[in-house]
Amino acid sequence: MRADPPIVVIAPDSFKGSIAAPPAASAIAEGLRRVWPGADLRLCPMADGGEGTLDAVLSRGGQRLTARVGGASGETVEASYGIVGGGKIAIIEAAQIVGLTDPEGTAIDVEQRSSRGIGELIVKLLNGGLREFMVGLGGTSTNDGGAGMLAALGVQLLDVGGRSVDATPAGLAKLAVADTGGLDPRLREATITIMSDVDNVLAGPHGATAIFGPQKGVRAERVGEIDARLARFAALVEKALGNTARDRPGAGAAGGLGFALQLLGGEMRSGAEVVADLIGLDAALRGAHWMITGEGRTDAQTLLGKTPLVVARRGASMGVRTTLISGGIDRTALPELSRHFAGCFSLTFGPIALEQCVVQAAGLLTDRAEQLALLLTALRGSEPDTADAKP
Amino acid sequence: MRADPPIVVIAPDSFKGSIAAPPAASAIAEGLRRVWPGADLRLCPMADGGEGTLDAVLSRGGQRLTARVGGASGETVEASYGIVGGGKIAIIEAAQIVGLTDPEGTAIDVEQRSSRGIGELIVKLLNGGLREFMVGLGGTSTNDGGAGMLAALGVQLLDVGGRSVDATPAGLAKLAVADTGGLDPRLREATITIMSDVDNVLAGPHGATAIFGPQKGVRAERVGEIDARLARFAALVEKALGNTARDRPGAGAAGGLGFALQLLGGEMRSGAEVVADLIGLDAALRGAHWMITGEGRTDAQTLLGKTPLVVARRGASMGVRTTLISGGIDRTALPELSRHFAGCFSLTFGPIALEQCVVQAAGLLTDRAEQLALLLTALRGSEPDTADAKP
Repeated sequence: MRADPPIVVIAPDSFKGSIAAPPAASAIAEGLRRVWPGADLRLCPMADGGEGTLDAVLSRGGQRLTARVGGASGETVEASYGIVGGGKIAIIEAAQIVGLTDPEGTAIDVEQRSSRGIGELIVKLLNGGLREFMVGLGGTSTNDGGAGMLAALGVQLLDVGGRSVDATPAGLAKLAVADTGGLDPRLREATITIMSDVDNVLAGPHGATAIFGPQKGVRAERVGEIDARLARFAALVEKALGNTARDRPGAGAAGGLGFALQLLGGEMRSGAEVVADLIGLDAALRGAHWMITGEGRTDAQTLLGKTPLVVARRGASMGVRTTLISGGIDRTALPELSRHFAGCFSLTFGPIALEQCVVQAAGLLTDRAEQLALLLTALRGSEPDTADAKP
Repeated sequence: MRADPPIVVIAPDSFKGSIAAPPAASAIAEGLRRVWPGADLRLCPMADGGEGTLDAVLSRGGQRLTARVGGASGETVEASYGIVGGGKIAIIEAAQIVGLTDPEGTAIDVEQRSSRGIGELIVKLLNGGLREFMVGLGGTSTNDGGAGMLAALGVQLLDVGGRSVDATPAGLAKLAVADTGGLDPRLREATITIMSDVDNVLAGPHGATAIFGPQKGVRAERVGEIDARLARFAALVEKALGNTARDRPGAGAAGGLGFALQLLGGEMRSGAEVVADLIGLDAALRGAHWMITGEGRTDAQTLLGKTPLVVARRGASMGVRTTLISGGIDRTALPELSRHFAGCFSLTFGPIALEQCVVQAAGLLTDRAEQLALLLTALRGSEPDTADAKP
């Protein structure tokens, strides 16, 4: 019988609406320590590029800073961002500036909201000498095609009379000319990585407005008109820059910020993959015996590349198996989930209402993790064999 | 890395109100086979001496027979019983004859109900040459102090005028004489094992009527009167037989059947312990790597010696660890449960209503068992080491 305490990587996403990834990872660790007090627990809270990305990345190092920029509704926002990679890489979480869950930012109609603050922050960072940007999309309240951001970066949006129009869905109604001559030249030296899991194009039936507009408040009868405005805006800036992006996968992310950032040369990547790189997940997996991941709700969507799947694949490539803890699991997805996860377990210990589960999440995570660890001690001769671990 | 398929003992109790122990064991086995097609799965459905005991015992061999005897309300019951031990041991489940969940048997008031049918069955079995009886109490609808059973076995219950009185709580009001001269003499050669987890005495504030009477329909204002009748009845038969039993632990089981059977020389044993012996649980544990048990609901009561705890202790004494699957777990009991079980897991995969859980129990058990097995494959070098198993 072997008795070495195991090495476990703990890499949950946030449990949306309930507990963020860093405290979720801590809660899981607490449960494992009850069973294995000497375990080497490697906390790697994850994110998918949306809300929580900054917290997850900064939990493994780097600096958290704030900047005052414009919010979606024109208010001033004290937005957090991160600096990692020895001061060279800026981490921007769009939801920090134009977040869908921000009551002030969503105070006015979506047709009046602008992504200008994202551009303002990029200008400040360019002023500070930064040239490498990682922008997490997801959880945004704007649907302006990224017009606001481009305007803040120097693109002039004008009506037929040469007057500046608002960089909002409403303002774009009168857009006649996009003058990109004033676009910040420092962007040419910049590297932009776009973190997003959205594949949608900018406009049309699978575009930002049609698919994500309604959840941001675009009324059904306005979808066609707003969609057309974004398409026209895109055509004008594309022509001016001699580049295209509106039909690229992900152009429809974050109300078209995916379009605007790709037009500036940004590269789309899976948010979870970028976060895994930034937090050094592969390094944490070296020599590990087991990994736990987690998310708020698990169904067939998870299999399309959500954070737990990205994590499990990283683990598999390093010879480490991954167990999933989820707020709730759609049992119909279990046959497929079972190919990727070494067990899928919910937070629940019996029949319980969702609201109860949400408020008790931290305690449930700790208890659940403890029970998983206890089970792993169950088989005769089941103690981890560190001799099998890679160096 | 070792690859031998594991040997697993599957020993759940019934999930009360949902699924009986034998199909529960099969459902768990189905889940394990998905992960370990070659596993040696030893199905040992358990019971605690109450409802389901007969099914559990007979699932491992023996004969199921039926006999026509009187039910609690005087109706005729086609009662199942079992013959095991090479034709020598009769298994009687009191709930098969006077079951609390039987609508016909509970059609009349509890004060009119009688345990006579139990005695009638014992007489038939004595006629058949049987002398070893294992009587499972629990789940009964009667509260007659076992008077009905004793009457069927030959005890005469008479009023002051020497007229026979009904062997029911109502009839006992007029009881003046208990004549035990006609008690079946073959009982002297008989061995009676009483399966019960109840410690209550027959009468008084912790007696059968006060504690279990109300759930059988004894109205609060009638508890004192009925309790006094049972106490007087007990005193009379005890005096006549020159023996006492009413203050022994378990005398208050099954409305006093525990008293009457002990008065006849019966020995009280934990129902789960007897069932474990009858189904050969220790033999099944020989060389096993892991055991799964289960029950419908787990809380501090489980720790007082319910079936899963009995099973886990048997396992521990054989060097086999036990994991619990439960319909629902009271988390406040987890610290103590974790000393006995290698992991406690509910059937649920997320927030769910109890009723949903009840109807889906078989599928949930299969999915749960599969996920537990998947987890057990998670740790590097975690395959069962059969070299560690005892011969």
